[in-house]
Amino acid sequence: MQGSLTNVTTSVWYYAMARVVQKFGGTSLASTEKICNAARHVQRAINHGDEVAVVVSAMAGTTNELVSWTREISALHDAREYDVVVAAGEQVTAGLMALAVQALGIPARSWLSWQLPIRTNDDHGKSHIESIDTSEISSRLSEGEVAVISGFQGVSSRERLTTLGRGGSDASAVALASALDADLCNIYTDVDGVYTSDPRIVAKARKLDKIAYEEMLEMASLGAKVLQSRAAELAMRHKVVVQVLSSFDNVPGTLLVDEDAIVENTVVSGIAYSRDEAKITLTGIPDRPGIAAGIFGPLSKASINVDMIVQNASDDGSSADLTFTVGKADLERALETIRHVHELIQYQELLFDANVVKVSVIGVGMRTHAGVASKMFETLADKGINIQVISTSEIKVSVLIAEEYIELALRSLHTAYGLDRE
Amino acid sequence: MQGSLTNVTTSVWYYAMARVVQKFGGTSLASTEKICNAARHVQRAINHGDEVAVVVSAMAGTTNELVSWTREISALHDAREYDVVVAAGEQVTAGLMALAVQALGIPARSWLSWQLPIRTNDDHGKSHIESIDTSEISSRLSEGEVAVISGFQGVSSRERLTTLGRGGSDASAVALASALDADLCNIYTDVDGVYTSDPRIVAKARKLDKIAYEEMLEMASLGAKVLQSRAAELAMRHKVVVQVLSSFDNVPGTLLVDEDAIVENTVVSGIAYSRDEAKITLTGIPDRPGIAAGIFGPLSKASINVDMIVQNASDDGSSADLTFTVGKADLERALETIRHVHELIQYQELLFDANVVKVSVIGVGMRTHAGVASKMFETLADKGINIQVISTSEIKVSVLIAEEYIELALRSLHTAYGLDRE
Repeated sequence: MQGSLTNVTTSVWYYAMARVVQKFGGTSLASTEKICNAARHVQRAINHGDEVAVVVSAMAGTTNELVSWTREISALHDAREYDVVVAAGEQVTAGLMALAVQALGIPARSWLSWQLPIRTNDDHGKSHIESIDTSEISSRLSEGEVAVISGFQGVSSRERLTTLGRGGSDASAVALASALDADLCNIYTDVDGVYTSDPRIVAKARKLDKIAYEEMLEMASLGAKVLQSRAAELAMRHKVVVQVLSSFDNVPGTLLVDEDAIVENTVVSGIAYSRDEAKITLTGIPDRPGIAAGIFGPLSKASINVDMIVQNASDDGSSADLTFTVGKADLERALETIRHVHELIQYQELLFDANVVKVSVIGVGMRTHAGVASKMFETLADKGINIQVISTSEIKVSVLIAEEYIELALRSLHTAYGLDRE
Repeated sequence: MQGSLTNVTTSVWYYAMARVVQKFGGTSLASTEKICNAARHVQRAINHGDEVAVVVSAMAGTTNELVSWTREISALHDAREYDVVVAAGEQVTAGLMALAVQALGIPARSWLSWQLPIRTNDDHGKSHIESIDTSEISSRLSEGEVAVISGFQGVSSRERLTTLGRGGSDASAVALASALDADLCNIYTDVDGVYTSDPRIVAKARKLDKIAYEEMLEMASLGAKVLQSRAAELAMRHKVVVQVLSSFDNVPGTLLVDEDAIVENTVVSGIAYSRDEAKITLTGIPDRPGIAAGIFGPLSKASINVDMIVQNASDDGSSADLTFTVGKADLERALETIRHVHELIQYQELLFDANVVKVSVIGVGMRTHAGVASKMFETLADKGINIQVISTSEIKVSVLIAEEYIELALRSLHTAYGLDRE
C-alpha cells in the first residue's frame, strides 16, 4: 500500500497514491466500446500513481441469457453445473478488460477465481466468500501491473466453480478490497451515486456525498439498486471505504463511510420505498401460546421471508388480528401455506392486499434525535395517507401504505425532513 | 475398460460394452434443444452399457463472436488473454451438456481443463496437449458417471488457460480417447461421414465406411472439414479408432482405422481439392547454389507456407523458371517478400495467378499399385485440362489446374478411379 485516504470527512475528498479496487457493472461493460471506456478509469488511477485491482461483472444481458439456457434444459438444475455455465460471463469480461487496459499501454492480466484463488463455501448459486489469496496479485500490484478479477464467483474446497448469487460482483469487489487492505473501493455503475430518494419520483432528490454503512444497508435491503446489500454489509463489517459512482463520467459519487465520519447534522439521510410488498391479515385468531409459531414456522419452512408483523388483541383479549407482509412473489405460496394450517390456527378470515408499498425514512441521526417517527406519522396524516403497519429499527422507520399514495408520500416526507435540493 | 471393438474390419461394426469418447461440434450444440438432442446419443451409449466421456465445442457462432471482441479491443492482443476470453465458450456448453445428460436421469458432471487437468505447452492460441490426467474421471466412468469435458482448451504449466487453435476440440477428443484408452472416439458433426469427394460437386460421391488414418490426414490437410488434421494425426499416432458421424441421426458414419484394417481393394479412396491456392512464378533466375534458400528462407521467416514447388532449367542450363504455391491469403505478403530479394535473386519476371485449384487423388493402395498418377494425367488430358504443377507423396498425387475446371476435373477423376455410387 502506498498511501491512504486523507480527507474522507468532507464532501470533496482527495487522496495521495493509494491502492484502489475498481468494480464495473454489466451496463458499464455492455460492449467492447464501453469496456474500453471503463479501462480509461483504470488509466486515470494508474496515472495518479495508484495500484489498481479491477473487478468485473458479466456484460449486461449475458448472465440472464446463460441462466435462461440452464432453465431451458432443466427446471431443477444441478446448482454446480449452473455455476459452471453462469461463471463464464465474468471470464469473458475479465479477459477483455485485461486486453483493454493493455491497449492503453498499461501492464495487466486477468485472474479467474480459481487462479487466485477466491475460496467460497460450496453453497452453489449463492455461496459466500471465505478467503481470498492476494499474495501473488499484491506483489504484482506494487510493480504497477493491473489485476483484473472475474467477479461474482469463486471456487469451493472441492475445486468446483461457485457463484455468489445475483449482484455478487459488488460483494467480490468489497471482499477483495478488504483482503488487499485497499484504501478505496470504487463501484462504477450507471447512476452517479446514492440519492436522498428515487430521483424518478422525487425531482428534488439530492445526491449524497457520504452515507453511513448502516444507512446504505437499509437502503439496499429496500431495493435501492446502486449497491447489493451483501456488499454493503461486508463493507460495514470490514470498514472498507466504498464509493458508488458513474462509469460514464468522471465526477465523485457517494462515499460509504463509518457513521463517525459523517459530520453533517441531518437526522434523516434518505426516504426509500419498496413496491415488492404484499400484506396478509388473519382475523379472529385465538389468543393462546404457540399461535405465532404455528403460522410463521410453516412460512419459514417454505422459505418465505416475513417482514413487518403487527398483532392487535381484541378488547376482551380472547382473540386477535395478525397482520404481516411478504414479498409479492411469495404471496400465493404464503396464502396456500396458511390455508394448510387453518385447522390448527382456527383464524376467522384470511385477507390479503398486494396493492401496498413500504416507505422508510432512514438515518443514523435517529439514534440521537427524537421525533423522527412522529414527524413521519404527522406528515402522512396531513396528506390523508392511512398507515396500515409500522415497523421500526434503530435507524429506520417504515410504514406500509396503499400503493396509490407512493409519490405523494415520498415527496411530502422528502420536504418534511429538509432533504429537498435548493 | 469393459470391452472392445470386435468387428471394425467390415462396414457394419458391432461392439460389446466399451469405453467411448463422444465429441460434439458447434452446430450440434447450437441451441439448448440441440444440446438435449446430443445428450440422447450419450443416453444410447449408456443404455448399451458403455462408459461415456463427452467432449464439447462451443455453440456455433460463439467462438467467432468472442474472437471478434478481442479484435475490436486490440488488433495485437495478448494471446494469454485471448485464450481466457475464447475458452469461455466451451465452459458454457460443458455445463449445459452435463445438465442435459442429468435431465435424462444419468449422473454427469462437467470438467474444465484446469480441473482434470489437461496440460498443454504455453503456446497460447495454438497450444498442443502434453498430458491429460484421467485418474479421477476414469474411476468415475467405471461407476457409470458421464464426464463432460470442455474441448479446445487446456492449462499451461503456469496455470493459465490455453486454447488449441480453431477446430481444436477434435484434437481434445482424440487425445482424451488415447489417454482414457477408449475403444472408440465418435466425432459427431453435421455431415454423416467422409465422402469419396465433395458431394456438393460430385453427385455420385459415396460415403466411405472406412478410411485409413493417412488418407484422412491428407484429406483434412486439403480442407475437408469433417475432421481437423491435427486430430487425424493424433489418431494415427496413438491408434485411436475414430468414427466421424452425424449428430442429427443415428446411423454409422466413417471409421478411421489402420491401413491394415481396410480390406477393400480400391486403390484410390477419394478425390480432394483445395481452392486456397495461389501460384507464383519467377522466370529467368540464374542457375547457381543458394538461390532456393534465398527465396524460401525469407518466405519461411514471414511464416508463409509454401506447398508445391517445381523448377524448370532452360535448355542451356544457365537460367531456370521457379513455380510454387502459397495460400491465397498469403499471396500479397509473399509477392512483397520476393520483391525485397530481387537484388539478390535477379529474377526476370515475377508472375502470379490466384485462379488455380489443387486437385488430389488419395489412397493408401498407391503404395502397392502403379499407374495411379498416369491415369490421373490421362483423364485430365482427355478433358483438355492443362496441368500446371504436379506434386506427389506416397499416398497422394496432386495437380494444380485452372479454377474453372474444378467440377469437370473432380467428376472425371471420380469416375475414372471407379468411385461413383451405383
